[in-house]
Parts: sequence; structure tokens; C-alpha cells
Amino acid sequence: MLYAIIMAGGSGTRFWPSSRSALPKQLLPLAGADTLLQDTVGRLAGLVPAERTLVVTNARLTAAVHEQLPHLPADAVVGEPCKRDTAPCIGLAALLVLRHDPEATMAVMPSDHVIEPAACFRAGLEQAAALVDAAPDRLVTFGIRPTSPSPSYGYIEQGEPLPTAAGDAAVHLVAQFREKPPTEVAKEYLAAGTFLWNAGIFVWRAKTIIDALARHQPECLAHLQAIAAAWETPDREQVFAEEFAAIKGVSIDYAVLEHADDVAVIEAPFSWDDLGGWSAVARQRGSDAAGSTVVGRHLGLDSTGLIVHTSDDHLVVTLGLEDMLVVHTDDATLIARRSHEEQIRRVVSELENRGWHDYL
Amino acid sequence: MLYAIIMAGGSGTRFWPSSRSALPKQLLPLAGADTLLQDTVGRLAGLVPAERTLVVTNARLTAAVHEQLPHLPADAVVGEPCKRDTAPCIGLAALLVLRHDPEATMAVMPSDHVIEPAACFRAGLEQAAALVDAAPDRLVTFGIRPTSPSPSYGYIEQGEPLPTAAGDAAVHLVAQFREKPPTEVAKEYLAAGTFLWNAGIFVWRAKTIIDALARHQPECLAHLQAIAAAWETPDREQVFAEEFAAIKGVSIDYAVLEHADDVAVIEAPFSWDDLGGWSAVARQRGSDAAGSTVVGRHLGLDSTGLIVHTSDDHLVVTLGLEDMLVVHTDDATLIARRSHEEQIRRVVSELENRGWHDYL
Repeated sequence: MLYAIIMAGGSGTRFWPSSRSALPKQLLPLAGADTLLQDTVGRLAGLVPAERTLVVTNARLTAAVHEQLPHLPADAVVGEPCKRDTAPCIGLAALLVLRHDPEATMAVMPSDHVIEPAACFRAGLEQAAALVDAAPDRLVTFGIRPTSPSPSYGYIEQGEPLPTAAGDAAVHLVAQFREKPPTEVAKEYLAAGTFLWNAGIFVWRAKTIIDALARHQPECLAHLQAIAAAWETPDREQVFAEEFAAIKGVSIDYAVLEHADDVAVIEAPFSWDDLGGWSAVARQRGSDAAGSTVVGRHLGLDSTGLIVHTSDDHLVVTLGLEDMLVVHTDDATLIARRSHEEQIRRVVSELENRGWHDYL
Repeated sequence: MLYAIIMAGGSGTRFWPSSRSALPKQLLPLAGADTLLQDTVGRLAGLVPAERTLVVTNARLTAAVHEQLPHLPADAVVGEPCKRDTAPCIGLAALLVLRHDPEATMAVMPSDHVIEPAACFRAGLEQAAALVDAAPDRLVTFGIRPTSPSPSYGYIEQGEPLPTAAGDAAVHLVAQFREKPPTEVAKEYLAAGTFLWNAGIFVWRAKTIIDALARHQPECLAHLQAIAAAWETPDREQVFAEEFAAIKGVSIDYAVLEHADDVAVIEAPFSWDDLGGWSAVARQRGSDAAGSTVVGRHLGLDSTGLIVHTSDDHLVVTLGLEDMLVVHTDDATLIARRSHEEQIRRVVSELENRGWHDYL
């Protein structure tokens, strides 16, 4: 059976002041009416039911996650007591799934990407699950055909092609994983045509990834097994806190994928955007006649190329502005030149420096 | 005895969104900790006591005025039922004052100017009152030495000088009042050195201005006398509403001053700023090391030459901005290029056009 493991522990700072430590990117309705997390769960409708869905987030966010996903059972949301990157997250999810289903296949995915159309995403997952059914020791990942020599993503080099059925997406064995390259190297990858972006979406048997962790991260796995053993006992919370904190954080790519022998990459049969910042949001939402992307109540005079985010109640008026970002929230407003979008992280650091924690 | 008549009926739109129809410029703390109206009353301390102070505002603002000036008696605030410019306002105030004191001298002043130091302002009023005592039929006005060829003010041409005591400001008979001139003409005025800005501050006997209205505006005066006659009766409100509405609005300059024979102008012995917009506010408040003027909680990164107005709770962050105006209020935020400051009126018109009255 196919299980969905949704990783929702991120705490992105690029969407401040909309995103906060208590309301990070995945919990915001950045691309449409629903939040990115709600879209992520909704996208699985018809393929993975609520009782086979697990959202792994951090402990501070579990209440907010339940609020956004009221149809999920209480047990479907796991709140990590601290941040330890993706390998411990995925390993724990695998152990929890294995309790119910020793043959479980798990689809692991981030909660803060825009993926369309949903039907193609589901078809991709089904194709991956079939690849795993055919070769249970195989790890399957999804690669995105690059549209630019971006230095912001990891790359996957395609090796030997694997046979596919009519209508299926192309599948290759992975020749090599490459970490985020300098732009010059990324240009070579783009020109070569055999490199895909690593989208962080994986499909494999739960048992297979546990075996891989046993081989490559035995200490990590031991801690996770202690947690799983205490899961149905009154000690769950205490054991979870102590054992999880003792794990060394590491990504699943670095811990497992780069060392594994049989990894296949499916060229994603869907469009994908990781919404790296406000300009990506604007790209998703489109723009009006003034070249502006507006959410909420706005009056623009002599204003072009803006991104404006406010509420339906709080009016934002812009007068004589070009290429600016305006984000209004109840307690903080950001006004930035769009060319400075990458520096929103600096704002968050500076707020930390000043001890203005209410705004973080 | 000297009475103060403070005209507080203005409804400026240049400070939107801080200024609203229910909270216009004079009721805002634009130049310091107190509001401009509070500063105006406070400036008279020691010269004119509360019981000889009359604030004439519009009916919608009387509660707010009382709230800002709790030490004034209830009768000291008059709420006009509609806007009719300065002549009816001043005429009614004169009639009300005359009921108590047939020999009253009244100092008439706007409520939304910045005047410093207060002691020099009081000395100027005392000098004006002495001029009126010496020649009871005389009208006295204050003129501001121009610092630029501004087309935004009326000008007063100085005529024959009048003798003054040591330490007094220069006084001249008025040769002529000139309406707001084109900049080219204003340049000639500036070069001539005998033209002063009309600051709208006047001193005269209440009886003298009533006599002048009787001569030049008999219809207006008849309506005002009907209102004054009903002032202490249960019909005050109804008569005020009906008779005041029937008056044709006209400024005291146009109605009286331009036709009067004996008008003197005192060259103001104080600094004066009519706070025509946010840049004037910035000039009053001064700027920080980044050339910015900030009220409230602000974090500026790569930001210079800003005017930021917010509260102590609502954080405004600016990133990569130059020469911009940011004004945050509870329900509306304005972000404007400072070169567009004059166009804030357009914002207000556009809000009216759209029927977004909540923000006016």
C-alpha cells in the first residue's frame, strides 16, 4: 500500500513578515486560496487516503497543522521536538508506517512546493510505486527538467534509461547526485541535457530505506528505533524528545541516496515550483494590467511591477512606485525594492539581533 | 480683554491616511508629542485663559476637540453645522464674545500651524493688541518674511511703516493684499523685499470686525445675528443649522481685509510653518543619520531619505528604499515616492470615487 509522508517542518524566512516561526511558508496560502500544505494533501486525493497520510512537522506547529487539516486523524501529525534535517524525519516515518504494514511503500514529499496538475503528480507517484513493486530494493526520486542554470538546487545526473510503458514519464538510473553547483557548472549541466533538479520527492519501500539507514546511519536508526518502541507507551513524548535530540541532523540525500546503488530518477511529468520567494509567488499568481500581483485591498496610482500582499480590510495605497514589494500583516509591514528580495533573510537576522522576537 | 479664537474646522487631505475626515490634521501630533491644536492652545498659556478661548470647529469634531482639550469649558467649543470659510466663522465668534465683553479684542488664528517660540508669539499678540488699543478701528494681521517664491500663499504688501517701541516687531500699514501669485510674480515679490506671506493670524476688536461685516457682508451678518440671538435658547441647534447653511461661504480676507482702510501688518517675530505636507513635518522633526524622519517602530536596511510614520507596536521594515514616504495606520498604509507627495490628494479623490468611505 502507498503511504504519503509530508515533510512540513520548514521554517523559511524568505516570506517574512507573512511567514513567522509560528506560521511558516507551508502554512500560508501563498499560491492560491488554500495553504501550500493543504494543497499538498489535496493533491493526493484519490491516491492516498487520510489514514495513510503522515505529516511530520515540528512540535510547535502540530496544532496549526491539525487546524488546517481537520480531516486527518490525530495520529497523522507528528511533531518533532527539534530540527534534525530529512534523514531522521524520513526514518521515523518509515518505522511508524512499518508497524501497520511491513510491505508499505512510502512517497515522501515537501509541503511547500507548487505542483500542477495534481493528476499528473498522482500518475508520477503511481509510476514510481510500480517501479518499486518491480524492484523492491530500488529508491526512486523525481527530477525536474532545469529551465535555468540555477545554483540553488541539487542536480541529479541521468544514467542508463529504464524501460517504460506508453504514456509513462522517462526513467533513468541515477549516475550521480551533485550538490548545489556554482552557476558556471550549472550552465554545463544545463547544456549537457542529462541533469535534473532534485525536487526532494522520493518513493520507496519503508523497509528498504530502513535497511539503508541501518547500513549508512546505524546510530541514527538506533535512536529512531528507541522512539518507535516507546510510541504506544506513556513515555512517548519524553523518549521522543531525548532520543531525537541525540541524533545528528543529516539530509536523506547525503545520508543514503548518494551511497545507494539502485536509485532511479523519474523526469517529473508535472510542473514544479519551490516558491523560493515573493517573485515566485507573483509568477504563480500572474499579474494585472500594471504588471503587479496583488492579494488584498490595494489602490495603485502611477504604480507598476509591484507585489502587494495585504488583507481585504487593510488598504495599501501605492503612489509613484515601481518594482517594489509590499507585505502587510497585523503587526509588521515590509516594503522592499524587488531587487533586494534575497535580502529579506537579513531582516530576520536583524530582528533577532535586536531581540524583537514578537516579530519573528 | 484679549480673547483667542482658534479656527479648527480644516479637513486637510495631504496627511492621508493619518488625517481622516474624523481626525484632520489639526487633531494629529504631527510636529511633536501633542497635537497641533493642543500646541495652539498651549502656546497661549499665560496670555489667554481657558475661559476666554473659543475653538470653532465643525460639528463632527467637537467631541474629539473636547477630548484633546479637557480643560476647556463646554461652551468654549463651537461646532459649525457646515463649512462656510473664515468670514462667517470669525463673525460668529465675534458676536459670541461681544455678549460678555463689548470691548473685547480677539486674536484669530489657525489651529494647524507650527509656531515657535511660544513666548515670541505671545509677545506678537500683545503688540497687536496694543496697536488695536491705540486705534480701535484698526485691523491687525501678521505677515511672514518669505523664504521662497511660493505660489501657495497669499501675500501682503507693506506700506507706510508705523512707529514701534524698542524690542517690538516691525509694523507697516498694508498697501495691498495679493492673492496666491504665479511663481514668476512671487519671485518679484521676494526680490522687492516688501511682501510678506499672509499667515491668517489676525487681531482686532470684536466690535470693529462686526462693523466691517455690516458694511461689506450685511447678509452674512444678519444670519449670524439670528444665530447669536438664539444661542441661549432651546432653538440654538436648529437655528444654527438653518441660518449657517444659508450663508454664502467667503474668506475674511476677501470679505473684509481687502476692502478695509486701516489695516496694519506686523512682521511675525516668530518662526512659522503651515505644515503643508509630510516633507514639512520631516523638516520640523529633523532627520537621523540615514536622512530619514521616523515616528514609531522602524527597521531600515539600505534605506535613506525616508519619512516613516507608524505606531510603537506596528513594525515597518524598509529594504533598499530611497526618498519614500511610508505612513501606516490601523486600517490603511500609504507608500509613496516623496516626489509624489502633492498627489496624495489624488488618493483621497480616488477613494471617494470608489466609494471606499471607511478610509476617508
